[in-house]
Amino acid sequence: PVTGCTISPKTIPAKNRCDGTYEQTRAKEIAQTLGPKGNSKVDFILDLHSTSANMGFTIILVNNDPFNLQLAAYLSSLDPLVRVYSSIEPGKENTFLRSLSNFGCCIEVGPIAPASLKGAIFQKTEALIHATLDYIEDYNNGKLLSNTYPLTIYHYLKVVDYPRNEAGELEGMIHPQLQGRDYQELNPGDPMFLTFDGTTIYYEEEATVWPVFINEVAYYEKGVAMCLTKKEIVRE
Amino acid sequence: PVTGCTISPKTIPAKNRCDGTYEQTRAKEIAQTLGPKGNSKVDFILDLHSTSANMGFTIILVNNDPFNLQLAAYLSSLDPLVRVYSSIEPGKENTFLRSLSNFGCCIEVGPIAPASLKGAIFQKTEALIHATLDYIEDYNNGKLLSNTYPLTIYHYLKVVDYPRNEAGELEGMIHPQLQGRDYQELNPGDPMFLTFDGTTIYYEEEATVWPVFINEVAYYEKGVAMCLTKKEIVRE
Repeated sequence: PVTGCTISPKTIPAKNRCDGTYEQTRAKEIAQTLGPKGNSKVDFILDLHSTSANMGFTIILVNNDPFNLQLAAYLSSLDPLVRVYSSIEPGKENTFLRSLSNFGCCIEVGPIAPASLKGAIFQKTEALIHATLDYIEDYNNGKLLSNTYPLTIYHYLKVVDYPRNEAGELEGMIHPQLQGRDYQELNPGDPMFLTFDGTTIYYEEEATVWPVFINEVAYYEKGVAMCLTKKEIVRE
Repeated sequence: PVTGCTISPKTIPAKNRCDGTYEQTRAKEIAQTLGPKGNSKVDFILDLHSTSANMGFTIILVNNDPFNLQLAAYLSSLDPLVRVYSSIEPGKENTFLRSLSNFGCCIEVGPIAPASLKGAIFQKTEALIHATLDYIEDYNNGKLLSNTYPLTIYHYLKVVDYPRNEAGELEGMIHPQLQGRDYQELNPGDPMFLTFDGTTIYYEEEATVWPVFINEVAYYEKGVAMCLTKKEIVRE
């Protein structure tokens, strides 16, 4: 059977929020509880994240294992606001918590300001967790799971940074016409950024893309204004 | 004439974001540029803030000087999303930047996640700043300013904290039906909070109130889930 483990959220002491101490300590605790990588004590990890981007409810794939794909297809069949994003980059090690085990996924929810709660998003996230646990229980009980394909997957292509000057300082922001339009088509010639002097910067590549993580506040310092994806429809 | 001063935003060095050093240093610099309180070098201060609450564009009054009230009435006549909030508490010293001079106000804009920018809100804030500067210029040139009364003012009544346990830890969140409903009526019997065990907490006082700063992320640690106000319509 697929075994899982829940990790309770903890309040981060104010003094540790910035120096990285908390995150380091917590990472070691989690590794001890769930690890080691490649030989994990649990089969399935559900990793919960929030974002200030308008991501709705995004299932982020750990890997392309059929169990995970079928689960993602099932969860995304429940609601059009549940979408599936694959940030898997071939040949690149996955360093996220969810990579400790082979089964599992991340649920990324937004828009929410960091360190706050929104009731409706909280309730919907809870419902997705329950749906996931029910799915695993059915699987462990050998129940035939209904086919919920086709599955739409948004595949990571690359990141795009904000316009910046030579010193790396911000010179613009997401264009008002793109703000909040995660998972919607961005076509050649569409507005992408608005600089502080009022100039519009357009998307100039040849292929249509589907941006996600648009204006995620934690990514300003990582040089990421959005992630571009391409859309794939998996029929089985 | 009314004289003003602009203060350029500065990037906060990462190492100073949490220890308070930056804010203290900056407060001293600003006090030196604009102060001292009660004998300020400038007549008018426009203080810009952002919030994660759904506040739209809120003019926060410094005091009840007729110049400020007329300016607020003018700005709120431009757009129904521009509202006027008075946090003045009789007998209590105002410690905000905007209190350094007698004329001026704060413009509080949202919803935006802290430390991020939203193009549409940025542009609208710029337009409000320009409208304010034009208003001051007209005043200084002795132009007759049109009467834009009645003016609706939301007066601070009190703050309400989130449900918490005896250790002060959060036990619930803003009720989904109240989230984002800043400046809308909260009537006796309306849902206010949803606890983590699924219990709804209702507003149980007798008077209708108009909550603002609902779910402002920086106020969790201040024990403020929202500020209740009462609505006043000033006819002159």
